[in-house]
Amino acid sequence: MRRIGIIGAGLCDEATAKTAEKIGRMVVERGGILYCGGLGGVMEAAAKGACEAGGITVGVLPGAKASDANPYIKVPVVTGMGHARNVVLVRSCEALIAVSGSHGTLSEIALALKMWKPVIGLDTWPNIADVHYVQTPEEAVEKAFHLLP
Amino acid sequence: MRRIGIIGAGLCDEATAKTAEKIGRMVVERGGILYCGGLGGVMEAAAKGACEAGGITVGVLPGAKASDANPYIKVPVVTGMGHARNVVLVRSCEALIAVSGSHGTLSEIALALKMWKPVIGLDTWPNIADVHYVQTPEEAVEKAFHLLP
Amino acid sequence: MRRIGIIGAGLCDEATAKTAEKIGRMVVERGGILYCGGLGGVMEAAAKGACEAGGITVGVLPGAKASDANPYIKVPVVTGMGHARNVVLVRSCEALIAVSGSHGTLSEIALALKMWKPVIGLDTWPNIADVHYVQTPEEAVEKAFHLLP
Amino acid sequence: MRRIGIIGAGLCDEATAKTAEKIGRMVVERGGILYCGGLGGVMEAAAKGACEAGGITVGVLPGAKASDANPYIKVPVVTGMGHARNVVLVRSCEALIAVSGSHGTLSEIALALKMWKPVIGLDTWPNIADVHYVQTPEEAVEKAFHLLP
Repeated sequence: MRRIGIIGAGLCDEATAKTAEKIGRMVVERGGILYCGGLGGVMEAAAKGACEAGGITVGVLPGAKASDANPYIKVPVVTGMGHARNVVLVRSCEALIAVSGSHGTLSEIALALKMWKPVIGLDTWPNIADVHYVQTPEEAVEKAFHLLP
Repeated sequence: MRRIGIIGAGLCDEATAKTAEKIGRMVVERGGILYCGGLGGVMEAAAKGACEAGGITVGVLPGAKASDANPYIKVPVVTGMGHARNVVLVRSCEALIAVSGSHGTLSEIALALKMWKPVIGLDTWPNIADVHYVQTPEEAVEKAFHLLP
Repeated sequence: MRRIGIIGAGLCDEATAKTAEKIGRMVVERGGILYCGGLGGVMEAAAKGACEAGGITVGVLPGAKASDANPYIKVPVVTGMGHARNVVLVRSCEALIAVSGSHGTLSEIALALKMWKPVIGLDTWPNIADVHYVQTPEEAVEKAFHLLP
Repeated sequence: MRRIGIIGAGLCDEATAKTAEKIGRMVVERGGILYCGGLGGVMEAAAKGACEAGGITVGVLPGAKASDANPYIKVPVVTGMGHARNVVLVRSCEALIAVSGSHGTLSEIALALKMWKPVIGLDTWPNIADVHYVQTPEEAVEKAFHLLP
């Protein structure tokens, strides 16, 4: 099973959540496992979509408690390592989809590119060379699977 | 779903592998997810048992490549952090079962006790206060689930 | 003693090395400890400057061997954690100066901003909100010390 | 400069503190840098001894704040990684001296042995194969330097 990560804002508006939820669902429908940071916002919405499609959802958590995970995480990975969990999340995925997000997401985009992993960007940090920017959740998932190694 | 970790030797004899395989199967039959270090020996045998029982197997890998995982790992977690992955593995579990093992296993036992998690010992490092020593795989799984928080 | 980090390219041209060396020296002259990633390029040049000024140089290494450090590192910190060492480096500093650099540096800039630490940028990733861009090594060190918490 | 780590209890009695302080002082007198976990008890006493002898003291901290360090730490390394800092500490040292201590110390002893580093034990976890047990701080430091690679 292919491992697709979603990264993005821990707090987000309804429209962004819908986008993330669609991405989560489509990742599972195409046979992927959804990896994320396990918390709220984009992470929770994507996990919800993936979960409702019957998939496996992995949450790589920064804190020390599994109960930090959002309710749609089936497999919590409890790092207790703060932002260093970003490295574990990125390294575990074959491709990453960034949806909105702030500095934490930027660090994950940069780490993914450093590790030569495909990064798809949707309404996120602009103008980063090597990020594949798209306009819709459908395109994002299509592109992610297309670019898998 | 309860999260049970198995820790132990990366290389092991046939009898130890059978023991680990039984533990993996029983963890899944009781509704648990099996977490391990993702490599060979006790880790692979336990994952095989869990996998064949239809369960989810998580491999928290020390190296930088998902392909390091044994073939029974459904969810690879690629830390790229060497022995620091032991901390992530232990922290992700609600109880741990140690089967044989050397210094790496001892570090995991110690970390688990430090985090106040139940540790069941089967033919492993002896005489560590607070480890619950048992004689059979059945007892190990029984004890692990009994001691869950 | 104040803890100033320098982040940047692991390979660099002579002019960039001169810049980094000046920064290293000035950090020490102002009473700081110089933290860096311990490898070559900007890291080595800055450590050389700091060392020659009689200061303490800390190299937070990604690999598993102290001998990976450049010859100007007095205090190697051997993480064996790959890119997760970026998090340790950033967290250990009170302010960071970015000089040139690629995706690894971008991840460090993002992590530093995420942790609300001052980031000074000199000929590095442009247009990142909250980075304090400067034109000279003198300005960089001046700004870093000025912005210390 | 040789890198010697001291590991042990975060809270200790006066006699143990005196022992640790002597070890810290002697490590510096023999030209070593003292590495420790940066907190109280054995760590603080050893750092005090090393500091008063004019040496460099490195504290590899589990938490996210440099201010967690005891007052004798000159070089704080702020990991924010909880117990995973044990791995960084052990990996950074060429030899380790264990003084008393509980499960955290046991994990460090095990990790050090796993990495083939010399471990000297003084009034600590007994009966671990490959630990070099000694009776006095003088012997501990003598043995540590003698066993350096």
